[in-house]
Amino acid sequence: MKRMLIKHGTILTMREGEQPIAGDLLIEGDRIMEVAPFIEQPADLVIEARGMAVMPGLINAHNHGAMSLLRAFSDDRKLMDWLEKKMLPAEARMTEEDVYWGTQLAIAEMIRSGTTSFADMYVYMDAVAQAVLDSGMRASLTRGLVFLEDDGGKRMQEGIDLIEKWSGAGEGRITTMLGPHAPYTCPPEPLREVIALARERGIPLHIHLAETKEEIVKIREKYGQTPTEYLYHLGMFEQSHVLLAHAVHLTRRDLGFLRGMRGGVAHNPVSNLKLGCGIAPVMEMKKHGITVGLGTDGAGSATTLDMFAEIKAATWMQKLDTGDPTQLSAEEALRMATIESAKLLGIDHEVGTLEAGKKADVILIDLNQPHLQPVHNLASLLAYSANGSDVDTVIVNGKVLMRKRQLTTLSWEEVQKEAAGRAARLVHGL
Amino acid sequence: MKRMLIKHGTILTMREGEQPIAGDLLIEGDRIMEVAPFIEQPADLVIEARGMAVMPGLINAHNHGAMSLLRAFSDDRKLMDWLEKKMLPAEARMTEEDVYWGTQLAIAEMIRSGTTSFADMYVYMDAVAQAVLDSGMRASLTRGLVFLEDDGGKRMQEGIDLIEKWSGAGEGRITTMLGPHAPYTCPPEPLREVIALARERGIPLHIHLAETKEEIVKIREKYGQTPTEYLYHLGMFEQSHVLLAHAVHLTRRDLGFLRGMRGGVAHNPVSNLKLGCGIAPVMEMKKHGITVGLGTDGAGSATTLDMFAEIKAATWMQKLDTGDPTQLSAEEALRMATIESAKLLGIDHEVGTLEAGKKADVILIDLNQPHLQPVHNLASLLAYSANGSDVDTVIVNGKVLMRKRQLTTLSWEEVQKEAAGRAARLVHGL
Repeated sequence: MKRMLIKHGTILTMREGEQPIAGDLLIEGDRIMEVAPFIEQPADLVIEARGMAVMPGLINAHNHGAMSLLRAFSDDRKLMDWLEKKMLPAEARMTEEDVYWGTQLAIAEMIRSGTTSFADMYVYMDAVAQAVLDSGMRASLTRGLVFLEDDGGKRMQEGIDLIEKWSGAGEGRITTMLGPHAPYTCPPEPLREVIALARERGIPLHIHLAETKEEIVKIREKYGQTPTEYLYHLGMFEQSHVLLAHAVHLTRRDLGFLRGMRGGVAHNPVSNLKLGCGIAPVMEMKKHGITVGLGTDGAGSATTLDMFAEIKAATWMQKLDTGDPTQLSAEEALRMATIESAKLLGIDHEVGTLEAGKKADVILIDLNQPHLQPVHNLASLLAYSANGSDVDTVIVNGKVLMRKRQLTTLSWEEVQKEAAGRAARLVHGL
Repeated sequence: MKRMLIKHGTILTMREGEQPIAGDLLIEGDRIMEVAPFIEQPADLVIEARGMAVMPGLINAHNHGAMSLLRAFSDDRKLMDWLEKKMLPAEARMTEEDVYWGTQLAIAEMIRSGTTSFADMYVYMDAVAQAVLDSGMRASLTRGLVFLEDDGGKRMQEGIDLIEKWSGAGEGRITTMLGPHAPYTCPPEPLREVIALARERGIPLHIHLAETKEEIVKIREKYGQTPTEYLYHLGMFEQSHVLLAHAVHLTRRDLGFLRGMRGGVAHNPVSNLKLGCGIAPVMEMKKHGITVGLGTDGAGSATTLDMFAEIKAATWMQKLDTGDPTQLSAEEALRMATIESAKLLGIDHEVGTLEAGKKADVILIDLNQPHLQPVHNLASLLAYSANGSDVDTVIVNGKVLMRKRQLTTLSWEEVQKEAAGRAARLVHGL
């Protein structure tokens, strides 16, 4: 098996309470063999990491990759205006090939900004899976299930097909979930069926929850419950692992219902801010023992898929919301973007920290730049000053996907050309 | 005079309501001669800008440059804890040479993230001015004046010396202000003197205002007024141009007192968020006709001097605060970071937009990257997805300070080494 040795880095393992280690990291095949101050081993590839931070790849716990084709297409609009006049009509034109190239665009951006795994909910999931396979990324894929009209079970079947066809593909890089879209697009009957199926077959769930105040009003009018209560009383949190996206608007009782759940919440602060949704009660959720990771949501709303922007926004929001600058520290935010997100994707036994035996998903960040000097505190620099463009090298499953900022598995020229042409067609005349 | 021709760019002039122009920009000496779709002129230097955005350099309206030596030194702390246990003891050890190299570190970061002008308030201002001179940056410099103990007029004299010695230096790149530090560090008597002096000699003022709730309480206890009322009743806004940093906590009456003032407010959202201060009422201030620009504050609190982070934070905060995603659009935020900040520094007749006759402070941003494609809307991409590391070329006063991300006037190796050594000494034992 091939060996890769990363030398002379400043290693942030992201294991709780562990200080940065000046040293080396050895990879054999797809796994980390050792993290130590000094490793003397023959290797097929030696990566010099002097002046670089070495940390686990970032994990984007909620995305709709192909929406990158619609980045910056309809910013500064009201949510319903954004959705109904711009996003939905453009998305309605998307072909399977558009989804492939849109996802490649998203993946190119994610690799270039240090993301090594992502959770994706979209349509044409064969195309998404193929893009993940081709690019070398790690992903948890979900077919979004909207049950507002009877389609004879077509979408549901596609959701099941995705799971049967793609789970474990790409040397285990692809995992899958079932994706009932949201409380307001999933009436009780089909939702009960999805929950039962997930329970029977041990499939995790990925669903949007309580993103906007409008959703709270809508669900209360319909069911006399909060969206969280609605899912709770349908039994969603009883057994299955559930990845909840957003959870911006939770009551105290809602927090109680989520306590002890398997899975947790993907916090998407940039999208929540840009759409004026509000601040998710991250510190409260953490106090209730709920796992909270970080995601970007689609580039259609967030514009950027840079997880370093989410890290900043997450800490800023909690400090603002509590009026207390000690809340959500740099270390906590970095953990949310790595090991906590890994828990949401159900892959924390494999990735999310740098330690012997785990899969080698590793990024190198160039600290030899004015905004990352002097190095009083590495976690603070990474959380509060680094951005995606500072990532120098990205390794997923022991394979180099970017080296010195050059993508190795994707042709950026091809992705750029395909994306530009397809994007123009999607929005033409809207 | 030397001519520089920037070819094939997508030019965002930042003149109100003007759409991006696909074209060229001609510089002769230190001034812009022409912006047009096609310029055919001989030039000493031709810069190819295909695939790049060309826009006015960003203007950082509030900074304490030398504090970059204390970047990431004491994050995630309460403001008074941060200030009294960490910042002040470390700053007390600073020598004039430390200030020179700390300012160079800040300038290196600012150039690398597309900032071409900054307003700075600090001590040892000869060192700051020398750093500005040596680096080729443009700056408005202020000696911070704290009147909590009698120093026999020493600080005040230094403030005046700075103005007399450095105004107009560096081919006009250096301008100056008088800097009474803040309402809580300036009792009425010395403040009256400063205001009178500013009025007599036509000197602009730079002062912190209403950054924290604690300040509001303190000033009310002392003077029975809000900080804004305190300055207003001392006559600060009657004639002089005043640059107010922060203005987070303003009453409705305060807004009325500021209406019609010369100068305006430097909004520093990242620092305000990181310290848990709150959200400045930017939309309200704009409604009252108050000019609002953007600054970073010192890296000691903000950690980053990347104005693209401020642009994002500014728009996010106003959308959050109003619950309305249409508030503070991408275009408005970019204007705050350019022409509006230029107004605060009193240099809007010279910089802040790209137009014939103005000084050539120009930046090029590389759009040929996954996070900046496709180009549905340039302003949205720059405000919501670009970051400082995407800046390719920086020109100040017609002189190239960075080309293809390489600094041309500073030796980064030297700055890095000096900064690291000095930073370690400043915090040793704290």
